[in-house]
Amino acid sequence: VAKRLQAEVNANGDGSTGGLSKDAFRLAVVNTLERRLFFIPSFKIYRGVAGFYDYGPPGCAVKSNVLAFWRQHFVLEENMLEVDCPCVTPEVVLKASGHVDKFTDLMVKDEKTGTCYRADHLLKDYCKEKLEKDLTLAPAKASELKHILAVLDDLSSEELGAKLKEYGITAPDTKNPLSDPYPFNLMFQTSIGPTGLSTGYMRPETAQGIFVNFKDLYYYNGNRLPFAAAQIGQAFRNEISPRQGLLRVREFTLAEIEHFVDPDDKSHPKFADVADLEFLMFPREDQMAGESARKIVLGEAVSKRTINNETLGYFIGRVFLFLTHLGIDKDRLRFRQHLPNEMAHYAADCWDAEIECSFGWIECVGIADRSAYDLRAHTDKSGIPLVAHEKFSEPREVEKLVITPSKKDLGLAFKGSQKMVVEALEAMTEKEALEMKATLESKGEAEFLVCTLGKTVNITKNMVTINMEKKKEHQRVFTPSVIEPSFGIGRIIYCLYEHSFYTRPSKSEDEQLNVFRFPPLVAPIKCTVFPLIKTQKLDDVARIIAKSLTAAGISNLIDVTGTSIGKRYARTDEIGVPFAVTVDSTTTVTIRERDSKEQIRVEIGEVASVVKEVTDGHSTWADVMWRFPTHAASADERLDD
Amino acid sequence: VAKRLQAEVNANGDGSTGGLSKDAFRLAVVNTLERRLFFIPSFKIYRGVAGFYDYGPPGCAVKSNVLAFWRQHFVLEENMLEVDCPCVTPEVVLKASGHVDKFTDLMVKDEKTGTCYRADHLLKDYCKEKLEKDLTLAPAKASELKHILAVLDDLSSEELGAKLKEYGITAPDTKNPLSDPYPFNLMFQTSIGPTGLSTGYMRPETAQGIFVNFKDLYYYNGNRLPFAAAQIGQAFRNEISPRQGLLRVREFTLAEIEHFVDPDDKSHPKFADVADLEFLMFPREDQMAGESARKIVLGEAVSKRTINNETLGYFIGRVFLFLTHLGIDKDRLRFRQHLPNEMAHYAADCWDAEIECSFGWIECVGIADRSAYDLRAHTDKSGIPLVAHEKFSEPREVEKLVITPSKKDLGLAFKGSQKMVVEALEAMTEKEALEMKATLESKGEAEFLVCTLGKTVNITKNMVTINMEKKKEHQRVFTPSVIEPSFGIGRIIYCLYEHSFYTRPSKSEDEQLNVFRFPPLVAPIKCTVFPLIKTQKLDDVARIIAKSLTAAGISNLIDVTGTSIGKRYARTDEIGVPFAVTVDSTTTVTIRERDSKEQIRVEIGEVASVVKEVTDGHSTWADVMWRFPTHAASADERLDD
Repeated sequence: VAKRLQAEVNANGDGSTGGLSKDAFRLAVVNTLERRLFFIPSFKIYRGVAGFYDYGPPGCAVKSNVLAFWRQHFVLEENMLEVDCPCVTPEVVLKASGHVDKFTDLMVKDEKTGTCYRADHLLKDYCKEKLEKDLTLAPAKASELKHILAVLDDLSSEELGAKLKEYGITAPDTKNPLSDPYPFNLMFQTSIGPTGLSTGYMRPETAQGIFVNFKDLYYYNGNRLPFAAAQIGQAFRNEISPRQGLLRVREFTLAEIEHFVDPDDKSHPKFADVADLEFLMFPREDQMAGESARKIVLGEAVSKRTINNETLGYFIGRVFLFLTHLGIDKDRLRFRQHLPNEMAHYAADCWDAEIECSFGWIECVGIADRSAYDLRAHTDKSGIPLVAHEKFSEPREVEKLVITPSKKDLGLAFKGSQKMVVEALEAMTEKEALEMKATLESKGEAEFLVCTLGKTVNITKNMVTINMEKKKEHQRVFTPSVIEPSFGIGRIIYCLYEHSFYTRPSKSEDEQLNVFRFPPLVAPIKCTVFPLIKTQKLDDVARIIAKSLTAAGISNLIDVTGTSIGKRYARTDEIGVPFAVTVDSTTTVTIRERDSKEQIRVEIGEVASVVKEVTDGHSTWADVMWRFPTHAASADERLDD
Repeated sequence: VAKRLQAEVNANGDGSTGGLSKDAFRLAVVNTLERRLFFIPSFKIYRGVAGFYDYGPPGCAVKSNVLAFWRQHFVLEENMLEVDCPCVTPEVVLKASGHVDKFTDLMVKDEKTGTCYRADHLLKDYCKEKLEKDLTLAPAKASELKHILAVLDDLSSEELGAKLKEYGITAPDTKNPLSDPYPFNLMFQTSIGPTGLSTGYMRPETAQGIFVNFKDLYYYNGNRLPFAAAQIGQAFRNEISPRQGLLRVREFTLAEIEHFVDPDDKSHPKFADVADLEFLMFPREDQMAGESARKIVLGEAVSKRTINNETLGYFIGRVFLFLTHLGIDKDRLRFRQHLPNEMAHYAADCWDAEIECSFGWIECVGIADRSAYDLRAHTDKSGIPLVAHEKFSEPREVEKLVITPSKKDLGLAFKGSQKMVVEALEAMTEKEALEMKATLESKGEAEFLVCTLGKTVNITKNMVTINMEKKKEHQRVFTPSVIEPSFGIGRIIYCLYEHSFYTRPSKSEDEQLNVFRFPPLVAPIKCTVFPLIKTQKLDDVARIIAKSLTAAGISNLIDVTGTSIGKRYARTDEIGVPFAVTVDSTTTVTIRERDSKEQIRVEIGEVASVVKEVTDGHSTWADVMWRFPTHAASADERLDD
């Protein structure tokens, strides 16, 4: 609850938006993104469909760079088993996972027009508006509304409906009355094959494809734990009414890791590599106490059990490194622990990587210890045991409780109900069985509730024997726990856009120039090549350099338009190109760095290798500045720049 | 027709399957692929769903290598504009493209059980079985059945139904009677948003996402032609009854290029780079004449207009290079031109890259000149002109036909129908208009069919003036042509598996070992690292080497199991790992090449750079064999190897 209040407050705070209001800053970013085709509202010539966006050329390049780095940082580095499963998923899989029954939002309908709204959105909007605009609001009322905002996600359908009625909330567009809230399943439904009898859904997450393959993957890994599987792919959620632009969409790219681990040993051999990292965490207790996120050393968070286990901690550390390498500002990145009421009942612990942007703190990566839930659910539904085996080097003697019902005596006593009684006896927990054993020994009989019969029966000593027996076991069979880091790629990219965007004044004009300070890793194009003036000779040199860059695997763009060099710099700064080669002679050229605007002079034959060094991260710009002569911008460049 | 007969014959021919029958060869490949998790039938624990496959870890790595090379070879090399659009597509887009009305297969139903079959499949199976097994078949009957096989794709619903009846074909499983054939739309249908009123489909191709963005992309390219846009993504076809395993699936990855070009100038500046390539082509005329594919020099095929234009030819050449670089055998790759009856009416020319595998010649890439069809269709439906402009350096005087209906006179004559007559007059082609002009001048009146009125009307001289007028034009406005290379990534990968697979005898046992001879570019893992014997020292060295390989960006796998080195080699040969490092000392190690089994001895610090050289293609194995001492396999290695 407290954390949500906290989030609300922060959303209205100032952030690092360079003095602009959040809305103005966002507008500046989104305008630039849309004008330069980082994204395009999908099917725009048909007036679009809410919640769908295309990645245009620079956006697509950024996305493919982010995914390539994700593969490098997670899949290759940890030898994960990457898989690629279909989006179309048969009903049985999503029935087992719980999505068919529970993946819903509460919806209300305009009773006259049929327009649909998310019930919680309407209540939220009402509360926020009242709090912001109603100056006559009584303090008691204000704290009631604040309380509603804090518990919004926990309200039942009935509670939501009652509140909507109590406040007289109507349809926003028409003021018509609203229906009662009812659950709407967020999966896109379809039909597989021509008969219409086989229901399928577009997957709402990629994880289920991994879980159903657990047995094969475990075998592929030599029947050894731990191991991780990973998947990058499209996921789909048929949102009732998408808001928040690029952050809440109906189709998006997920990158998910399922790390399977022995529930009795969640240590991680490489935890030491990340233990010293220190960054913003927001543990459950701090949220409840109304405090803010604070810097904590990862090793301490795990040793103090703030974070449940080493493996979960390891992934939190790796996610931190991943995001900050991409260019996410570490001061606007926090790891927030789920509150007990947010977490699924089966989860052992769960942390969200939240990134602050103009919309507030946005969940971009979820890192959850989901215990054995998913594998058990598919084991139950499919009848295929999704388990791991630990072979003992030598057999172990274990004490085991053995319950042996005497079917003969039970049959005589309970006749047709015998089967239910037998099953109930066999299903007793160790504690229940030991209690019954004691009662039988002292009194000779015991009362026993058989749920399936709906009544209590009388069990006598002859009907069941309960003993601790010693047994030799050669292996342990168990369902692995799953630790799941799940990345919303589109959200990470959007936040990256906001964190990378800044403006600077042009020298010649009274105008702000837009810049994305993407690291080379992320930049859609690594290098541009400009002939300073339009001559055949310089054009030819530019083409030779472009070719050498392509051969070195550096994405580049050549711009031979006659536009002034300053304008051309501004144009590429706006899509975040980190380096620009200006061809002003046939022997040497200059290389300019985007943010410092510093230039060095390099021989033509060396350009590709120098650019490669700084884009691959083998050298920094400062390193190469030492090695090559600097170049002072010419009058023309300064004029426009 | 002839080509289809040809294809049928070839499918029963011998191919390069190393003496095995096609079926046995395929079984060997597919068994290996499935056992080593190159692919997994999706949702296997729930007994799967026909037409869906997962890529398991090595398959996923191969796929991502193929796509990375596709990006390098096409997108980066040609500065294409890559986009990434949603799979969920609103109905209006696919209505415009024709998919809602025409993307169908003919289906028949078992009249009792409701089981669905593709009508053409049943007829095809019947004909093939008769031809193969009925020894009493009369020659006339045999040639009738052969003719049916050849024209199968062209049969109408009625013709197919008539043939099924004539031959008494019943449902294969039950022998029940069948329904008449009717069209079944192959798109997965869904509903966007909560109202149920907005129909959507899972896209059957990625191309439409590009076409609807033409205007923005043209602007992004500085309003210049030609340029190409590209997209990699999932596509969906709800096949009636998928057959042919991995080749006919319900969800698959497409990589598509839409190259937009001035219809009056389809030359290509880089055509010279590919003009000298010589490879198997199968022009239309050769197919009609019953000949086989033959080697033709690309430059000649274009200059003789066998291939319609340079741009189409350029892409055919680039596709040839792409496929052969991946490891497709150039002798089992042909470019087959579509016959007139195969091609859409609007297409200018169309060639398929067909790869021969155990299923016969399989269409893997389609390279079509689709003229202006797609952009016109979306222009018409959306009302947004998807056109290009060519600005003239100075205004040009052009003669243009001007039709000026006299609305007053037409109104008097036709009253309420006036508007339809005016529109019909304005819509006349140049030829029709000139004919009318002549008739009006000679006879004073002319008969004129107005389709929208469904009748012929009488037009008199006063009702319309038709003149050739001289006009000054400053620019030309036109709809660009589209040249579309479209790649079925899954099919290419499957054919690559077949072309890369071979077996060789093990030395110790009477057993065949499986090998995939993937080029390093494609191999799922580039290098394995094995300590020769299990000691801490060698394990440590192995880990250091593995780390240096990872740092150099080379995917690798370390195998410290105690298994014999020969077995470990066999295990990695089977997933096509090209290089294996065996750690037999703490100073130098051996590097083994998969296909030659030759080994060289290299110092530990040099391993990563040597492996990088040969996997990046900067050196061949033969090159490095010269530079390093060779290593003779030890007794242990020879024993197993």
